[in-house]
Amino acid sequence: MARPQSPRIRIARWRERAWETTEDAVAAEEPLQLLLNGRPLSIVMRTPGNDIELALGLLSAEHVIGSLDEVVGVRISVESDEREAHIALRDDIVESNQIDVQLAAEGGRRPERSFLSSSACGVCGATTVELLTHEYPPLPEGPSLDAGALPALADRLRERQRVFEMTGGLHAAGLFTAQGELVTLREDIGRHNAVDKVVGRALLDRRLPLGDSILAVSGRAGYEVVQKAVAAGIPVLVAVGAPSSLAVATASRFGMTLVGFLRHDRFNVYSGNERLAGLAQMA
Amino acid sequence: MARPQSPRIRIARWRERAWETTEDAVAAEEPLQLLLNGRPLSIVMRTPGNDIELALGLLSAEHVIGSLDEVVGVRISVESDEREAHIALRDDIVESNQIDVQLAAEGGRRPERSFLSSSACGVCGATTVELLTHEYPPLPEGPSLDAGALPALADRLRERQRVFEMTGGLHAAGLFTAQGELVTLREDIGRHNAVDKVVGRALLDRRLPLGDSILAVSGRAGYEVVQKAVAAGIPVLVAVGAPSSLAVATASRFGMTLVGFLRHDRFNVYSGNERLAGLAQMA
Repeated sequence: MARPQSPRIRIARWRERAWETTEDAVAAEEPLQLLLNGRPLSIVMRTPGNDIELALGLLSAEHVIGSLDEVVGVRISVESDEREAHIALRDDIVESNQIDVQLAAEGGRRPERSFLSSSACGVCGATTVELLTHEYPPLPEGPSLDAGALPALADRLRERQRVFEMTGGLHAAGLFTAQGELVTLREDIGRHNAVDKVVGRALLDRRLPLGDSILAVSGRAGYEVVQKAVAAGIPVLVAVGAPSSLAVATASRFGMTLVGFLRHDRFNVYSGNERLAGLAQMA
Repeated sequence: MARPQSPRIRIARWRERAWETTEDAVAAEEPLQLLLNGRPLSIVMRTPGNDIELALGLLSAEHVIGSLDEVVGVRISVESDEREAHIALRDDIVESNQIDVQLAAEGGRRPERSFLSSSACGVCGATTVELLTHEYPPLPEGPSLDAGALPALADRLRERQRVFEMTGGLHAAGLFTAQGELVTLREDIGRHNAVDKVVGRALLDRRLPLGDSILAVSGRAGYEVVQKAVAAGIPVLVAVGAPSSLAVATASRFGMTLVGFLRHDRFNVYSGNERLAGLAQMA
């Protein structure tokens, strides 16, 4: 049975200077733990579905396997919709969101170098974010936000984002005060790097944790961006792009206000409604 | 001396059904090797600049360091423009694109789990892609491309990309024949995953290497997407978004045709001009 690639959730939408609550679809994001002959190799944050393809494609790209002949079997999770894959599958089923690629003894090679993985390793194989809980202190109450003032953050981010205009290739992360003043702007080819640079600047300036701040990102908000904001103690994350399902779940778990699709005149609120004036009482 | 965040390179542009050659800026992408007390910890693909912030922000997000007091020094590359960072720097300079964070003996903890890293580890600390050369066979001559037919690939990708329309949150990768027929389309929250799934499907169908194919991606083309295409033997990569500097360098090195900013009526060619009819003789 296939899981939805775009689960629907309840959100609040600010449009025409008024709130409405509605349902919206978000892109599914879950960690996949990849094992090689039973030994954990990597965690990949991915949209569930076609997991065998993902695992084999990744192993192929890293030259761990050269052809299908080196693969003797794949154990997949019960939720996977890939049972029709053209390779022999064993009957024993492992936990969900895990996939174990079984190589012939003589086939394949375990990569020597540090393999493709992710800062999301903390959730190793879990479908929920419960395992993260103990790692971070709760977020502070933080600022109370004026909905009408939020879109200006995206405008300010874009105004100051110079290299993007030239190359179309850089992500931006901006740290704002609760009053909407830009403190730090960083651009990078990697969206996580831009956030790391902003937080690193705050660390150098001895301003961590950033309990009274707003983090704005130019692109999408995936799990890792939310996780980095939680780690820095930032209670409000606004994204010009879409959030993922795991980003929403993580933000909810830690009481973060997560805003997505921030446009000139509208945006969506996915969690932490209580910091937005006029919205808290609607729930 | 700061390196440019957007180096300018020569490109060919298709517009109004004609070729022109021009200069264009691309977003800088280079690997940064992060060391902790002299021991390699991770490789991060990033835009050069603010590397101390990046390293410290990353270590902070991963709870390796909790405050600046745990950092006794940072060794950075000669190219870095961050000598003004508010921490003591040593005089000895390591290789470029390396940064070594020195922690107090009692401060910090080495992360136990597999750390944030990247499939780009093959380039460990190098600014060039020379180190990759031995890993991949040369790309085949591949198809000859009709410039007027290329934009249709982006249209076809978008038509078939259903989930993005709903969520705005998924990347797509599409494998096309040389004649522009869509073979496989995959969507994922991660752009690399979508490519891995496409290649994994080809592996399952015993169609690797994909010497007569075109890979189209809905977003930007960074180093890792190019590397995965090279590994799968795909000679032509077209991206709806921008390429990075390292993507261009890698594509050039392996003789791949790299197209970016694919729109309804125009696109840019960054390398591999010889596969495009009418362009080869212009160079």
